[in-house]
Amino acid sequence: MTMHPFDDAISLADKGGSRFAGRTTPAFANMVGPFGGSTAAALLQAVLQHPDRQGDPLALTVNFGGAIAYGDFEVVAKPARTNRSNQHWTMEIIQNGEVTTTATAICGVRRESFDSTELGFPAVPAPGDVEEQHLPEFIAWAQNYEMRFTEGGLDPANPNPSESASSRSTLWIRETPARAVDFTALTAICDSFYPRVYLRKGAMMPASTVTFTVYFHADEAMLARQGDDYLLGSARAQRFGNGYFDQVGEVWSRDGELLATTHQLVYFKG
Amino acid sequence: MTMHPFDDAISLADKGGSRFAGRTTPAFANMVGPFGGSTAAALLQAVLQHPDRQGDPLALTVNFGGAIAYGDFEVVAKPARTNRSNQHWTMEIIQNGEVTTTATAICGVRRESFDSTELGFPAVPAPGDVEEQHLPEFIAWAQNYEMRFTEGGLDPANPNPSESASSRSTLWIRETPARAVDFTALTAICDSFYPRVYLRKGAMMPASTVTFTVYFHADEAMLARQGDDYLLGSARAQRFGNGYFDQVGEVWSRDGELLATTHQLVYFKG
Repeated sequence: MTMHPFDDAISLADKGGSRFAGRTTPAFANMVGPFGGSTAAALLQAVLQHPDRQGDPLALTVNFGGAIAYGDFEVVAKPARTNRSNQHWTMEIIQNGEVTTTATAICGVRRESFDSTELGFPAVPAPGDVEEQHLPEFIAWAQNYEMRFTEGGLDPANPNPSESASSRSTLWIRETPARAVDFTALTAICDSFYPRVYLRKGAMMPASTVTFTVYFHADEAMLARQGDDYLLGSARAQRFGNGYFDQVGEVWSRDGELLATTHQLVYFKG
Repeated sequence: MTMHPFDDAISLADKGGSRFAGRTTPAFANMVGPFGGSTAAALLQAVLQHPDRQGDPLALTVNFGGAIAYGDFEVVAKPARTNRSNQHWTMEIIQNGEVTTTATAICGVRRESFDSTELGFPAVPAPGDVEEQHLPEFIAWAQNYEMRFTEGGLDPANPNPSESASSRSTLWIRETPARAVDFTALTAICDSFYPRVYLRKGAMMPASTVTFTVYFHADEAMLARQGDDYLLGSARAQRFGNGYFDQVGEVWSRDGELLATTHQLVYFKG
């Protein structure tokens, strides 16, 4: 059986002593180095695979310190603090003796409580009523996702698109080939929104994520219920200035359960 | 000259080797242990005070792993990666040989770029037209802030408030006694919103921040222009469930500049 390209991209060999060997794959290449979403997913994968892990992911923060070269890398994932109901992790990626990426994660036990989703599920047409749109082919990682934008899509056929007053994109998204969503796949989808500045300015320009956070609202059972169905993602920037913009995003199940909220700060030149 | 209570709370002695000695102060006590906002500010202060620091803060994430006991603590702050235009830091607080808190920060150089604040400045009355409201006296740290809620205040005079359909609070806030805002003070203000679940449920209950992030949109000059004037804070939760809720927040200058955006994930029991 062939491994799914996403599982291949985040697959790690446990070397013992909280060290894991990984390597980039061409399928998840970005314009320079690997897709940040698969890097973040590999960092989470190290925690999930660690023999001392307790509980499911609650939060993940990844700081992209330096470019990762195509090839081998090492993930170090250590429990910094283990409590009765949660566990705090620190991680890093090391390549050629240098730290390229730092990260933290929190795993924990969920218990029943007051339940309310205050954020509203976006009013959107069904996935079958929205055309599929491909990001340009030179963005290799994006070819692993089926994307159906209900607003804020990129039009690769129009090299001179107009500026947009809103930086919001909303889209139905799922992996292609199909794969059931789990915590690692959800992490990567949280980083799958193309840079908001492209949309506002109507042009591509150098942009790279500096820091990226996911809050997991879904537990394992909720994710298992999704199978490989479409998820709905929506993201916007709040402020652009002095070479950086922030992004806030949401990922929903098809039937309106909020699976994750996500934030990032992005460097751009333009 | 007496030190301002906030400066006293975050003051650190540089012990060399990326280690700093701090201690909690009664003025910034919370119900159990110190106010998370002053703990986060002390972690950032270690970076700011570090002899190798380059650039101003761009982002900070603090993970509250375990309760900090009143008394002495040690902050370890190390540059993990230094690039031409930014620097990635990892920090931790150690008390009695145990890691209580992990954190990461990114400092960097800001350059002129496309500038647009897409988020709207809330429509609110001027600070002088809003009554001051004190959080209950047993929340010691809150007595260091003048708070004027324009929506979503806590009414300490009403022990049985009603539930609220919205978890949003918006308030004018400044330090008391007056102190010019800087990156550390802005950090603490980003964590000054009382737990959103109190507002939704109309009742206090155990709640504590698990992880907290600040994205700094302001640079040093923008902060210097604020002096000790009121800032406008606004925060809401997006989802409550399985014992956790998230919070998204904004802090604005009085004249409508977005200084910081902030996120946190909070444990609660109720």
